Order: sequence, then structure tokens, then C-alpha cells
Amino acid sequence: MSRVGTLYGVGVGPGAPDLITLRAFRLITGVSVIAYPAPDDGESFARSIVAGMIRADHVEIPIIIPMRTARFPAAEIYDQAAAEIGAHLDAGRDVVVLCEGDPFFYGSFMYLHDRLSAHYACEIVPGVASPMAASAVLGLPLVSRNDVLSVVPAPGEDDALRTHILAADVTIIMKVGRHAQRIVALVAAMGLTDQAHYAERVTIDGAEFTCPLAELGDRPVPYFSMVIIQRQTERGTIT
Amino acid sequence: MSRVGTLYGVGVGPGAPDLITLRAFRLITGVSVIAYPAPDDGESFARSIVAGMIRADHVEIPIIIPMRTARFPAAEIYDQAAAEIGAHLDAGRDVVVLCEGDPFFYGSFMYLHDRLSAHYACEIVPGVASPMAASAVLGLPLVSRNDVLSVVPAPGEDDALRTHILAADVTIIMKVGRHAQRIVALVAAMGLTDQAHYAERVTIDGAEFTCPLAELGDRPVPYFSMVIIQRQTERGTIT
Repeated sequence: MSRVGTLYGVGVGPGAPDLITLRAFRLITGVSVIAYPAPDDGESFARSIVAGMIRADHVEIPIIIPMRTARFPAAEIYDQAAAEIGAHLDAGRDVVVLCEGDPFFYGSFMYLHDRLSAHYACEIVPGVASPMAASAVLGLPLVSRNDVLSVVPAPGEDDALRTHILAADVTIIMKVGRHAQRIVALVAAMGLTDQAHYAERVTIDGAEFTCPLAELGDRPVPYFSMVIIQRQTERGTIT
Repeated sequence: MSRVGTLYGVGVGPGAPDLITLRAFRLITGVSVIAYPAPDDGESFARSIVAGMIRADHVEIPIIIPMRTARFPAAEIYDQAAAEIGAHLDAGRDVVVLCEGDPFFYGSFMYLHDRLSAHYACEIVPGVASPMAASAVLGLPLVSRNDVLSVVPAPGEDDALRTHILAADVTIIMKVGRHAQRIVALVAAMGLTDQAHYAERVTIDGAEFTCPLAELGDRPVPYFSMVIIQRQTERGTIT
């Protein structure tokens, strides 16, 4: 019996190539097959982070996901990618799937994991997630002591967003994108604009941008963006 | 004028030495002064993660924090540590402060940051946080699509914990420690035991332990532990 390969879901962090882990580096440079999500109209963000580590003899499997807002037949795309990856694993080749940030924190890797983890050895390599990177770039401690943190994707309804923001000391609204002006208005109506920051593409050289939410204006907001609200509640501090 | 040093708050991840970032590795091995929190009765966890990278000629500044549950005069301890670190910075030496997980995610580094960041250049190196590591070890996708995540420290009151658990799709209860049996009872009373997992010291060689919450029993629970509740709500999936 020949050896069957292992599937690695590898977090490549928020954007800076040197914010990947030593384990991720060892795996990426050690395997012969690398898969990653990619849009149908441009470069793969996950691949771009580790582009300097990819060799000409790496077999690359881009998983092309149409970047439309309407629903799309993603199941077929992941079925096909899983089959292609499975063929490499069957042939004894380990496969690394590159994942922006952390593989299991709002990552698309779970769709491959769902399809493959019952049939193959699968290891997840956690990565630096974007909220921690944004907090680092802003120089603002995210949560401390007994703070409650809520992480809420921007597409949620206004009422639900308000409830989560009021229940937590700190709220991160993820994937702001086309919801930006609605979020800005909602935060303003809650009187929290002065306690909120905006961050996009954190740690990505030449693309990173952060500002107080009050200064966002009508800037176009990409998908990889977030709003961090730190309410001035009774947060414990040692002074 | 001689150059003034830079203060680096460096996340060293959840426990495995190879889950530190390339940037953390470069800084730790590049500076001459390293500070880290340490208990008064044993080894520093943060230092233990990178012990293999510390040289005999590294100047080490342990910040000894008494591990009592009662309040303690932490302000004086951080004042003194900040003064000691400041003296190295004034002398032109960069200083790395080692932080378990991520520096700004429930980390004590903020107490040094509060004292020093107005006076010295300060850079934060984000790290892999323990919830992402636990999710990786358990092989359970943490959050996806439009899931709402709550992170709640265990010392919170039962009513508040219940409210946060019910408001979110996924809840992480951090720093379970001596609150374990209360948390187990609360989750059971909510009928969520079968949707909960327990994780301690994830990715630490020889010390990691995870199990379904139902199997925790009367196991002693350390401070570095968490309960993850993933409610079977209408969480979106691509199947």
C-alpha cells in the first residue's frame, strides 16, 4: 500500500508575508501541491501573501470563486476542487490549502474540510486573524480582563447589530464592504462614532488603511474591512 | 543624540513554538532584551514557548505577577517593569515583550503599553489566539458565513453568560479555571452540553487536552482553558 497524503488547512494570516507561522512556512515550502481560493477577475489574496515562497515546481490548484453578490453554485466548485485535491492525496502527495487569516475563522476552507476530512488525514494550522492584526496596527488593545467581545458580520440586520453592540464591551463588524454606509449610519445613530475605528487590508504593504470611523467619509470600502467599536463601559483596568 | 530603542509587544501564539510568526522569530532572535510575565511560583508560559530561541546573552526581564485570585498591587509591578524596560529603550536597546497568544487579546501587555507607548516607539506583532488554535485542534470550524461569535470571560455572572450564549451562534468562554463546574452546570441547564467542547493548553506538547464538555467530569481545570459552544442554529452552509 502506498502512503496517502495529508490535507493541511493553513492559515496565512492577515496579509504581511512575515505574519505567517513557522509551521505554515515549513508546510508551504515542504509540499508539492498548493490550493487556494481565487476570484474570477484577479489575483488570489491568499496566494499573494506567500507568493515569495511558491516555487515553479509547485503544483497549484486555484479554486475559482465568482465574486458576485448573488448566490452562485459554490457546491459544484468545492466538489470539483475536493476531487482534484483528493486525487493528489490518493497519489500520496500532501496538499496545503492556503487560507486568508485563520482557516476556521470565517474561512472558505470549511467547505473543503466538510468534503475531505472524513476520508483523509487533515490538519489545521491556525493563523493570525484579522481582528488581532487590526488591533495591533491601530495600537488599540482589543479586549482585556473581563471584556465581552462580539464578532458580527456586516450583512446582519440593523436590529441584530444594535443588540450585539449593546451587549458587548467591544464589537467587531466584519466584512463591511458594500454595507459601509449603513454601518456608519447605525453606529452614528447609537452615538458611538467617536468610539469606533475602521480598518481595511491590515498589514498588507501599500494597501493597509485605518482611520477613526468619523473620518471614513465616502471612501470605497472593500470586502476585507472591519469596524471596531470599543464602548466606554466599565472596562476593568489596572492604572 | 543616540538612537532610542523600540518596544515590541510580540504575540507568541497558543503554545507550540512553531506557531509563532516569522516576524516574532526575527524580533526575538534579533533583540538583546526580552521581558515576559511570569508567576511567582513557576515557569513563565510565554518564555517557555520560545525557550529554544533564547540565548545566554539575552538580557531577561521577568515580570513577576502573583497568581492569587484576590486583587494585588499590580500597578506597582507594571510601574517597575515599565521603568526597567524604559531604561533599556533610553539606552538604545530594542525590547521584546513576550505575550501568550496575541498581545491585545486578553493580554497583560496592555498594562505596559499604557505606560510606555506615549514615550517610545511601540510596535505590536499580532499572534495566533487560543480560540483559533482550539478550533484547529478540535477540527471544528469556529465561525463561517454570517455566524455571530461571542467571546466571554468565565468570571461573568450567570445571567450575562446566558444572554451572550443565546445571542450568538458560537460562544467561547475564556479562562474557565475555577469557574468550570459553574459553567458546566449553566450549559447543561440551557440544554447545550451536546453542542459544547472543552479545550485546555491547546498545541502545548504533552499538555494539550480537549473533550466534549459532557466528558469533562471533575477534571481539574487550569486558567488557560475554554469552553466552545456551537449552537445548532440556522448557520448557513454550502452543502
